[in-house]
Amino acid sequence: MSINTFGHLFRVTTWGESHGPALGATVDGCPPGVPVDAAMLQHWLDKRKPGQSKFTTQRREADEVKILSGVFEGQTTGTPIQLMVENTDQRSKDYGDIAEKFRPGHADITYWQKYGIRDYRGGGRSSARETAARVAAGGVAREALKTLVPGLEITGYMVQMGPHGIDRARFDRDEIGRNPFWTPDAKAAEDWAAYLDDLRKSGNSVGAVIEVVARGLPAGLGAPVYGKLDTDLAAAMMSINAVKGVEIGDGMASAALTGVENADEIFMGNDGQPVFSSNHAGGILGGISTGQEVVVRFAVKPTSSILTPRKTITRSGAAAEIVTKGRHDPCVGIRAVPVGEAMMACVLLDHVLLHRGQIGENRGKIG
Amino acid sequence: MSINTFGHLFRVTTWGESHGPALGATVDGCPPGVPVDAAMLQHWLDKRKPGQSKFTTQRREADEVKILSGVFEGQTTGTPIQLMVENTDQRSKDYGDIAEKFRPGHADITYWQKYGIRDYRGGGRSSARETAARVAAGGVAREALKTLVPGLEITGYMVQMGPHGIDRARFDRDEIGRNPFWTPDAKAAEDWAAYLDDLRKSGNSVGAVIEVVARGLPAGLGAPVYGKLDTDLAAAMMSINAVKGVEIGDGMASAALTGVENADEIFMGNDGQPVFSSNHAGGILGGISTGQEVVVRFAVKPTSSILTPRKTITRSGAAAEIVTKGRHDPCVGIRAVPVGEAMMACVLLDHVLLHRGQIGENRGKIG
Amino acid sequence: MSINTFGHLFRVTTWGESHGPALGATVDGCPPGVPVDAAMLQHWLDKRKPGQSKFTTQRREADEVKILSGVFEGQTTGTPIQLMVENTDQRSKDYGDIAEKFRPGHADITYWQKYGIRDYRGGGRSSARETAARVAAGGVAREALKTLVPGLEITGYMVQMGPHGIDRARFDRDEIGRNPFWTPDAKAAEDWAAYLDDLRKSGNSVGAVIEVVARGLPAGLGAPVYGKLDTDLAAAMMSINAVKGVEIGDGMASAALTGVENADEIFMGNDGQPVFSSNHAGGILGGISTGQEVVVRFAVKPTSSILTPRKTITRSGAAAEIVTKGRHDPCVGIRAVPVGEAMMACVLLDHVLLHRGQIGENRGKIG
Amino acid sequence: MSINTFGHLFRVTTWGESHGPALGATVDGCPPGVPVDAAMLQHWLDKRKPGQSKFTTQRREADEVKILSGVFEGQTTGTPIQLMVENTDQRSKDYGDIAEKFRPGHADITYWQKYGIRDYRGGGRSSARETAARVAAGGVAREALKTLVPGLEITGYMVQMGPHGIDRARFDRDEIGRNPFWTPDAKAAEDWAAYLDDLRKSGNSVGAVIEVVARGLPAGLGAPVYGKLDTDLAAAMMSINAVKGVEIGDGMASAALTGVENADEIFMGNDGQPVFSSNHAGGILGGISTGQEVVVRFAVKPTSSILTPRKTITRSGAAAEIVTKGRHDPCVGIRAVPVGEAMMACVLLDHVLLHRGQIGENRGKIG
Repeated sequence: MSINTFGHLFRVTTWGESHGPALGATVDGCPPGVPVDAAMLQHWLDKRKPGQSKFTTQRREADEVKILSGVFEGQTTGTPIQLMVENTDQRSKDYGDIAEKFRPGHADITYWQKYGIRDYRGGGRSSARETAARVAAGGVAREALKTLVPGLEITGYMVQMGPHGIDRARFDRDEIGRNPFWTPDAKAAEDWAAYLDDLRKSGNSVGAVIEVVARGLPAGLGAPVYGKLDTDLAAAMMSINAVKGVEIGDGMASAALTGVENADEIFMGNDGQPVFSSNHAGGILGGISTGQEVVVRFAVKPTSSILTPRKTITRSGAAAEIVTKGRHDPCVGIRAVPVGEAMMACVLLDHVLLHRGQIGENRGKIG
Repeated sequence: MSINTFGHLFRVTTWGESHGPALGATVDGCPPGVPVDAAMLQHWLDKRKPGQSKFTTQRREADEVKILSGVFEGQTTGTPIQLMVENTDQRSKDYGDIAEKFRPGHADITYWQKYGIRDYRGGGRSSARETAARVAAGGVAREALKTLVPGLEITGYMVQMGPHGIDRARFDRDEIGRNPFWTPDAKAAEDWAAYLDDLRKSGNSVGAVIEVVARGLPAGLGAPVYGKLDTDLAAAMMSINAVKGVEIGDGMASAALTGVENADEIFMGNDGQPVFSSNHAGGILGGISTGQEVVVRFAVKPTSSILTPRKTITRSGAAAEIVTKGRHDPCVGIRAVPVGEAMMACVLLDHVLLHRGQIGENRGKIG
Repeated sequence: MSINTFGHLFRVTTWGESHGPALGATVDGCPPGVPVDAAMLQHWLDKRKPGQSKFTTQRREADEVKILSGVFEGQTTGTPIQLMVENTDQRSKDYGDIAEKFRPGHADITYWQKYGIRDYRGGGRSSARETAARVAAGGVAREALKTLVPGLEITGYMVQMGPHGIDRARFDRDEIGRNPFWTPDAKAAEDWAAYLDDLRKSGNSVGAVIEVVARGLPAGLGAPVYGKLDTDLAAAMMSINAVKGVEIGDGMASAALTGVENADEIFMGNDGQPVFSSNHAGGILGGISTGQEVVVRFAVKPTSSILTPRKTITRSGAAAEIVTKGRHDPCVGIRAVPVGEAMMACVLLDHVLLHRGQIGENRGKIG
Repeated sequence: MSINTFGHLFRVTTWGESHGPALGATVDGCPPGVPVDAAMLQHWLDKRKPGQSKFTTQRREADEVKILSGVFEGQTTGTPIQLMVENTDQRSKDYGDIAEKFRPGHADITYWQKYGIRDYRGGGRSSARETAARVAAGGVAREALKTLVPGLEITGYMVQMGPHGIDRARFDRDEIGRNPFWTPDAKAAEDWAAYLDDLRKSGNSVGAVIEVVARGLPAGLGAPVYGKLDTDLAAAMMSINAVKGVEIGDGMASAALTGVENADEIFMGNDGQPVFSSNHAGGILGGISTGQEVVVRFAVKPTSSILTPRKTITRSGAAAEIVTKGRHDPCVGIRAVPVGEAMMACVLLDHVLLHRGQIGENRGKIG
């Protein structure tokens, strides 16, 4: 219920502002005995870290995570895990202009209208820096899942930048880690590099679509009817900065299908588990996992901090133009990839624990 | 975070199965002194009620709501409001076949795999009949909002059926109530009638996209970062049966925009409130309302209960074919319109109360 | 954290007023596959039912519980269980006087001051009739615990009425069910009968202390630091009408002990489980069960509805005297016994599920 | 629902172990615009700080609190406030013995049995050092309450040490801050000094009773029926380390009263507010505040870490004796005084926000 917390049993509360002393995540409800150390978490934070290519903000943050509690001799103890990332490169002078003016398409104005006070430096609490805390927490979730769901793989990647989608025929999982866009389509990566470079130089930015897939999740996870797996995934992804749409399986395109087309027909597999002829459902039926791949997509709008002048008003209501200098991502979708993965990990762990709590190890058997 | 409850302060717990004695909603946290009676709620239930045209299921349910608690002499008392709808037309014999077989694209199989037991009659808990309880609760929320946000209007309508979208140039709010599809486009209504009739007769079904708009909501509602207004709306809509995608404002199409295009520029209006040049954001920035229209869309997949035979397995794992007789909606999206409105009403009331709780009546003033 | 809900994973929301159409409990999170029918629950409701001796209110309520959802073919399905008790004997005329005047020591005045509206009939929501719903929910919890913690016994009994405590030397568990006070001390039962009869006839009432013991609970249950087992038990008992104090183990008397006296020394038992020299701790250390008996006591204040005139004011602020006619318990503590047991059952089941969710079946082994 | 979080709208999650790098509190839901700085919080932490007299542990902790987020230019922003206290004096060598043996009356054994792993250093998460985080969070709550409930005073003091209670006839509020026991009875302070000194030297410890009173709270706060003000206070106090009993108003002694005695008769005061002839109820009826003083008492058991040898077992189940060296409070009740005050502040603020959320500023008027 807390407004900065998500999860039912595996609960993550993030805290911190872009230019405050630190930010982090308070992770509560992690099972005990999970091997965790700072290096394991750092691996994921480094994936999200700014300044790694010319396509992400040039802000230089070490994004070094410290574990302040909940881990003893390399293992979680079942008590709250405090993860802290200190802010080091805060160059507040860059943000003088936005203290008075509201960036169009940014939370500047709404935070002001809601709270009557805001930490304008770097966007304060509404900055995408908050997602560093999510990635750290997601790292803990991944480690816990290793024991609870052996073989589970969570993979995020970009499938569209601006109007340019990938070609699914060129899908190559191995390619994902090789390009700065986390895309499985090598050709798209090449094209996008030129496209984004031009946009960036012209003082513009662009949106993107990210897909996150979980492979190896057992059937039966999800808590109908308001803690459905897809409901929680939708909330998790929509809570990420700049996200405007979330899809499960065929998503919005489901509307165009007929019932005959949409039916993922069911057969028995050789291993005594059901198999399906297709996965329009994205691995979730009635809010519960089917055992297929869980497929989530989300759209990230373009960065609102751009060098092209836009019309706005000041805090006192005067008409103004704003040009956002400073260091900004021309496509925040890039760095949203590890964030989406982290949210997936947290939601899945949460549902593994929820299921175990209510139901235990036994489930309905087929056959 | 009960699995059958949604909301933070205005909390709705739905209960009941399709063919049990009754279903309903336990509504907790409603402000006291709100005029509510059964007739007010019945208005909205009647809008969702089955059997009103040949395009919805022919199941004949009175869907009569009774108020069992929380209302005294025509006003809410601030205590829990129990809303009960008795199931009257349960014709269980229609569902004999689905006791043993799993419908492709339906929650039959996942409920079984999760719980090891399921009330198969009419889909049990996974039936869309559960949404009657949401509509009743939404009726209470609407009454409470009348006092708290005078002038607020919540309107849902269908914007796409199968592959056929409406023409926004023909958008006519008055048309919405005049056709069986709740669509603002009279021409689309006509076309869809023929299209759906054909589909129905061929034993098929189809998906749809619903849009719900709230007009007159003040700026400042929404609780970053995990109780964002869009996050809660996404969860609310995704929790509705058969929903596979949710969009805020431009939604998935945001990905294709540049930052220059996406910027909703800000000006001062004559009434001293900010106005915007556009509403790509769907009335929400950083999870907080801007004062513009809040625009949510969701895709409903086609009904999985169809007369066309599909391949499946039985509970014992044998290969089978299934043809779902009984009375089913050829396009469940139609009856999802009032459900989407109800969810919007509940989420907005919840955030009005949350905002008042944390912040009170005062907000940041511009100018 | 709905205000009419308790529990983390096993969540009970009670609803209903004393003289409304019905009251009940929405039980969410119960494991599936638990054998439950109305008769099992009725057993516990009958224990609490009014009018069973001259020492409880003469209101004649059948208190018949109906199961409206969540149970299929005699077993829970894992979906919400709606338990409803219709109010049948509502004789509202008895309560005319209290519509205008506030009973001293009663919630009449505070409900008015909080909500500005109240269902004054029979105390409305603040009536102890609400506890019927708790007892019904507790019945469900007991059935679930039978499988999850075989051999667990939960027993409540009265240990003090007014200033008269039992003699622990005469403690006889078998005696508890034989007298109208649920006390293990036959001699006390005899004395109290005479004492309470006199009080009742003189238009007075009296308080009591109830003890509830759980025997057979394994070590390791309880969720530090704010979901401690004792914390949740304290909240559960304090939430019962008229309760003013809660103790675990030695309770308030712990203050008078030295550390040497208070130490429950630890030894290894023959079965490889630790045993303790004493149980000052009431079976809970650091908020976690030790495997010993869990011992909770709570004090119930005297009924505020009495025939002796007391000074009060009317709703318009005029000085007045009030004499509460109608049918009231001279010692509400008597009927609080099954309520205390029910709360214990709900809290223990909740913690069994919570523990299983976070930790699973494995725990730290000694030896 | 999180196991390390308390509160509904004003939510405090504490984290950290006795000998980890740091501990703290994540405070979520604080109203914006509250003047807060580290010095304000330090005031309360200093009151709880160890090593201030010979009657508390000689561990030397600076207990310096740092604000890492949620405060901007000296005011809260409405976003999460992270409060961190670094552990500086960790002398781990003192605790070598307790790595293997379980202290009788301590959470050592139950943490082990629950989690199968424990940070034994200084009691880890079960150490009373956790309460430093509560005191810091309570400091934030106090500042918020200054604006929301002007004139509210929260005062805690010791009323009993071991078997020795204060004489209420000597009650002097000004005395509370003058003696090391926070007691309003100067004579008791003198007697206790001698008594505790003897106990301490003999390697023993003792329990205590603390009373916390809130004066100036308006009527109408409290959320029946499971978020009652007394329910939440009981949970808050019972969650403090070593607490075994909680009382509201007359508490356990209510059981001995008759209804005639217990009735707090009601009159109209000169200011148009009701006044009461007495306060047996401790300022709470039906879970809602009456406007009188809210009176809570709790019993703290004696410290289990004592120099007198006690029988126990080792982790491998071998019989052993344990003598707990190191630096321990002979009466932890002393330092529980500011902790009880902090919990009272947090609960009251939470209920002020909850009430404002559901009901707003208007309430039922008398007269």
